[in-house]
Amino acid sequence: MEMNKVITISREFGAGGHTIGTRVAQELGIPFYDKDIMRATARESGFDIELIEKEQEDESKLDQFWKSIAAYSGGSGNYHDTQKAIHDLQKAIILEFAQKGPCVILGRCADVTLRQAGIECLNVFVYADDVHRAVRVGEMIGSTNATQIQKLMSKKDASRHNYYNHFTGQRWGDSHNYDLSLDSGVLGYDLCVELIKKAACEAE
Amino acid sequence: MEMNKVITISREFGAGGHTIGTRVAQELGIPFYDKDIMRATARESGFDIELIEKEQEDESKLDQFWKSIAAYSGGSGNYHDTQKAIHDLQKAIILEFAQKGPCVILGRCADVTLRQAGIECLNVFVYADDVHRAVRVGEMIGSTNATQIQKLMSKKDASRHNYYNHFTGQRWGDSHNYDLSLDSGVLGYDLCVELIKKAACEAE
Repeated sequence: MEMNKVITISREFGAGGHTIGTRVAQELGIPFYDKDIMRATARESGFDIELIEKEQEDESKLDQFWKSIAAYSGGSGNYHDTQKAIHDLQKAIILEFAQKGPCVILGRCADVTLRQAGIECLNVFVYADDVHRAVRVGEMIGSTNATQIQKLMSKKDASRHNYYNHFTGQRWGDSHNYDLSLDSGVLGYDLCVELIKKAACEAE
Repeated sequence: MEMNKVITISREFGAGGHTIGTRVAQELGIPFYDKDIMRATARESGFDIELIEKEQEDESKLDQFWKSIAAYSGGSGNYHDTQKAIHDLQKAIILEFAQKGPCVILGRCADVTLRQAGIECLNVFVYADDVHRAVRVGEMIGSTNATQIQKLMSKKDASRHNYYNHFTGQRWGDSHNYDLSLDSGVLGYDLCVELIKKAACEAE
């Protein structure tokens, strides 16, 4: 299959979005970018997002960071919100990835960033019911402790919902934000991979 | 392709759900049921929904209808809400259709009715942006009057949203209510038909 699009995948925790996204990229022979690759890219550019996230309580350490982010973003303003600054940096990195050519980008509101920039992309949302997600999360963390799994799911869900709603002004999980939304619990991972590839290669 | 599922299609006005659903049914060689067929079936059973909808202001004419609906639904209660009674009749008809075998059922909250009844089905939502829908609605009603098109879209959207939210308690357009949600404006009708067929035939 041939295609010239950027594919963004937003996903619920435990719905297999990472696995599905990796396979789509592999099978189409295009790069796959997730949070880890985004952090590594930021680090290469002189920013260590993970470190900054941990150290954000120490204002003195952040001064230099704000200035460098402001310069990177081409602005001259002062940033007083760590999350906003990191989000802006992620936007810049997402646009860099997308401009290199077809790829799969996971999470980080890439769908909205690319749409706002007028870059052609296929925006996919992958979700699943709680039972499928709980089983998957249990496998991921090697636990059968239901309370632990439930707490982790709630925490991650809330975090992703809040992040998306805050930075996009749109409602998380509303199908209108995406071109294609898939229940990986009902459809299965293999079929999700096939449907995304078909949609990406054949969309008008 | 072979498959043994009922496919339900919920759709926004002007998003082409009727066309897409008809084609899926034709290409899979299974029956297609829409509102008109549902009304005809109700009429064969002694109920004229369209007539009832028109005459609902005349309470005396409705008395017999309530009684017959209550009998049809196996209940003995009194119905004071026309829409609720019609909805219950539609539910009964939807279950009849689904029990006959694989088919495509359009609208009328068929997704929720079948899920509640434990009947295996693929639930699809078809939507599109306002521009694609406006062009389609203009074609449907043979008009280029933007105000007329906009008013009709708003009216139909509100009606479907309210109907779905009222009778299902779920949020219209939330991808979690469906197994597959498709933006027919981005993907095009042909691809929507192909994706639905593939999902219906290959889902686990």
